[in-house]
Amino acid sequence: MTQTPKNIAIIGSGLVGSLLAIYLRKKRHEVTVFDRRPDIRTVEFSGRSINLAMSNRGWKALRGVGLEETIKQIAIPLDKRAMHVNGKEVYFQHYGKQGEAIWSISRGVLNRKMIDLAEEAGAVFRFNEKVWDVNLPETKVYTGESEKNKWKEYQYDLIFGCDGAFSRVRHKMQRRSRFNYSQHFINVGYKELTIPPNEDGTHKLDKNSFHIWPRGQFMLIAMPNLDGSFTCTLFLPFEGEVSFENITTEKEAKQFFKTYFPNVSKEIENLTKDFFKNPTSAMVTMKCYPWTYWNKVALVGDSAHAIVPFYGQGMNAGFEDIDKLNELMEEHGDDWDAIFEAYQEQRKPNADAIAELSYRNFMEMSSKTADTKFLLQKQLEKKFAEKYPDKWIPVYSRVTFSERPYAEALAIGDAQEEIMKEIMKMPDIGAIWDSEEVEQRLLELLST
Amino acid sequence: MTQTPKNIAIIGSGLVGSLLAIYLRKKRHEVTVFDRRPDIRTVEFSGRSINLAMSNRGWKALRGVGLEETIKQIAIPLDKRAMHVNGKEVYFQHYGKQGEAIWSISRGVLNRKMIDLAEEAGAVFRFNEKVWDVNLPETKVYTGESEKNKWKEYQYDLIFGCDGAFSRVRHKMQRRSRFNYSQHFINVGYKELTIPPNEDGTHKLDKNSFHIWPRGQFMLIAMPNLDGSFTCTLFLPFEGEVSFENITTEKEAKQFFKTYFPNVSKEIENLTKDFFKNPTSAMVTMKCYPWTYWNKVALVGDSAHAIVPFYGQGMNAGFEDIDKLNELMEEHGDDWDAIFEAYQEQRKPNADAIAELSYRNFMEMSSKTADTKFLLQKQLEKKFAEKYPDKWIPVYSRVTFSERPYAEALAIGDAQEEIMKEIMKMPDIGAIWDSEEVEQRLLELLST
Repeated sequence: MTQTPKNIAIIGSGLVGSLLAIYLRKKRHEVTVFDRRPDIRTVEFSGRSINLAMSNRGWKALRGVGLEETIKQIAIPLDKRAMHVNGKEVYFQHYGKQGEAIWSISRGVLNRKMIDLAEEAGAVFRFNEKVWDVNLPETKVYTGESEKNKWKEYQYDLIFGCDGAFSRVRHKMQRRSRFNYSQHFINVGYKELTIPPNEDGTHKLDKNSFHIWPRGQFMLIAMPNLDGSFTCTLFLPFEGEVSFENITTEKEAKQFFKTYFPNVSKEIENLTKDFFKNPTSAMVTMKCYPWTYWNKVALVGDSAHAIVPFYGQGMNAGFEDIDKLNELMEEHGDDWDAIFEAYQEQRKPNADAIAELSYRNFMEMSSKTADTKFLLQKQLEKKFAEKYPDKWIPVYSRVTFSERPYAEALAIGDAQEEIMKEIMKMPDIGAIWDSEEVEQRLLELLST
Repeated sequence: MTQTPKNIAIIGSGLVGSLLAIYLRKKRHEVTVFDRRPDIRTVEFSGRSINLAMSNRGWKALRGVGLEETIKQIAIPLDKRAMHVNGKEVYFQHYGKQGEAIWSISRGVLNRKMIDLAEEAGAVFRFNEKVWDVNLPETKVYTGESEKNKWKEYQYDLIFGCDGAFSRVRHKMQRRSRFNYSQHFINVGYKELTIPPNEDGTHKLDKNSFHIWPRGQFMLIAMPNLDGSFTCTLFLPFEGEVSFENITTEKEAKQFFKTYFPNVSKEIENLTKDFFKNPTSAMVTMKCYPWTYWNKVALVGDSAHAIVPFYGQGMNAGFEDIDKLNELMEEHGDDWDAIFEAYQEQRKPNADAIAELSYRNFMEMSSKTADTKFLLQKQLEKKFAEKYPDKWIPVYSRVTFSERPYAEALAIGDAQEEIMKEIMKMPDIGAIWDSEEVEQRLLELLST
């Protein structure tokens, strides 16, 4: 169905805001994008970002407006994890079947490109213009120099809040009665670090891998950039024995890298410099409901469902919101009530599911990577999945390499976990895990 | 330990704010209480309140400043529930042992009295003065006519946020990183209704009972006032077959009361009048953490932990906060860092526990009161508790008639529930519940 062109405000010029602008322009709506920050194309990056891992859901949304190939040119495919365990050679774990990969993209590079594309599509960007208030029933937007100065008023037909985890638009919705809301911070923070390229511009580590240095309570990851560098992220508790709180001098930082990450010790000067230059950031799971206000205002992306980054799905989930919104616009045409109602009803359980899966990944990484029983279970599952790829699709693949609902992935994953619980109870499982007996029992449990 | 007198602001002149003012005045602090509302002693009540049920924790806090007897004069003891089930005679369930009672108090009457007492104690009240902002590190309070007008600035040594579930003080803390927060509304609303006194000023229903008309998805309760009236509360889903949404005309309201509450049908004119006069209110569980900011700002009562009213513990929990704060002031003297740190660490698990218990009571009332297995279990527990009062103290008694931590009541309640699950699995339990065999099994499970 076609839509009558509307005058639409998008608050936030991040990835979700700019992709939504492109989608809405395709439907011939007038689009203005507000952002309190300056144009990211004119400033240095913040030094607080984690490289993105674009996977199937993200690509599908880009494909919908013909941008998949354009964006692949600024992305690097990673078909495996490279595990850096002290005292072992680096070893590799392929993600999925042949050809399946996640794609590393610099958030800043992608955001600049998306804004270019949105402008080309006819969206108007108003940078350095902070939205202080929103009149929800009258779809008015108020901007200004400060909260107390005189505000400028704009009138729109529709407003989309794409202004992230600390959304101002949601903030306004939150003041209404019966608005459910939660924000939960984890006790681990993160810091962006960099491994620069070799002098000849090549990558210092395998370019097509997602590099992980798992250390139980903390971990380092590295993802490649086009210029030969790696954007690394150090995840570390805020407080405690090994923590941000306890690394305050250069000497302590160097000792920390040397002790726990000896195979990157050649990079120690850079890592230490970045450690003190870049901010330490917190991570939050934010849930809320409703996501829409009448047929007037809707939250999209992190403003509706911020998640911790341990599944690499934050951007993918936000882009999938847009893909689904687009499907609903095609189905319902000008009936924005129906579009918004179906949007929040369909997306909410999926957003909750990926929030849960991401949080569990965090818990697993920080508490279970040293648990031999857990590792045995993972090994057993992997073997079975490889032998019976149609009977046992791992949750990671369902989330990353499929476009089926997140809620389905979570539910099937829980059912698989129940089966594995039974298997792990088998006597002497440590010795027989690789046996015909275990395999038969698994097949039996799967068929009941 | 004694304390150096400080200049303290309390935001909110409700029950918790005024009792805290009295406590702080006893320690010779200067106390100013701000409230955005007018002096409750000069205005009519809101028509949106539920009568309070003061129980042991509340009385203990009042006793601490010598006010137990004063307040008992405006309270009515209720030693039992009066159950109004259609087609049955009204029947009574005693709350506890001889002499154990909860006390019905009108929120408005109590609040007026508490403000009188706080003023007598030397606290200064600034009514009609809304706090728009708080500078947390500098303990400054900003008030004014509107958010955008010029504000007045006040400087204090300490600030207490006693400004309820939608606290402005907490709102400011919430904007900081790593502040955990959740608000969850239930799908049931409530409305205040009144049963007036008889012409001679006596009560129309038994005066010393907490009256309940349980109807599964909804319920009516009534609590006595000193003037012979009852303050009733109708709890009803916002949407659905029988709901606020579906009662929009006088005719519908009268039909509703006649159908579901026939034994108060003489009151139908009053109930119907109130139904349309009084607002429908929402109920929220609000949790957050931390509750304090350095040694400068602390949240007390609903601003730190708002709960649904189905355990009658909201005010009691807030008063207990004050009692514990007072203990910590005596222990730590001028070390406000230690006072605030211990306060939030001790109180948070207990606040979470009473939130959980209150929510469970809501779920039980709305989904389980028609479940025969649930009712059988309750009957069995009751019988056992009466026979072995030292071995089986019901959770309700632990919450209501003791001053042991809420978290302990919840934990013991969960352990009891596990035992009852085992008992309810016994073959033919419906027939043998009253037998020696069941009793022995219960004793056995209790001793393991």
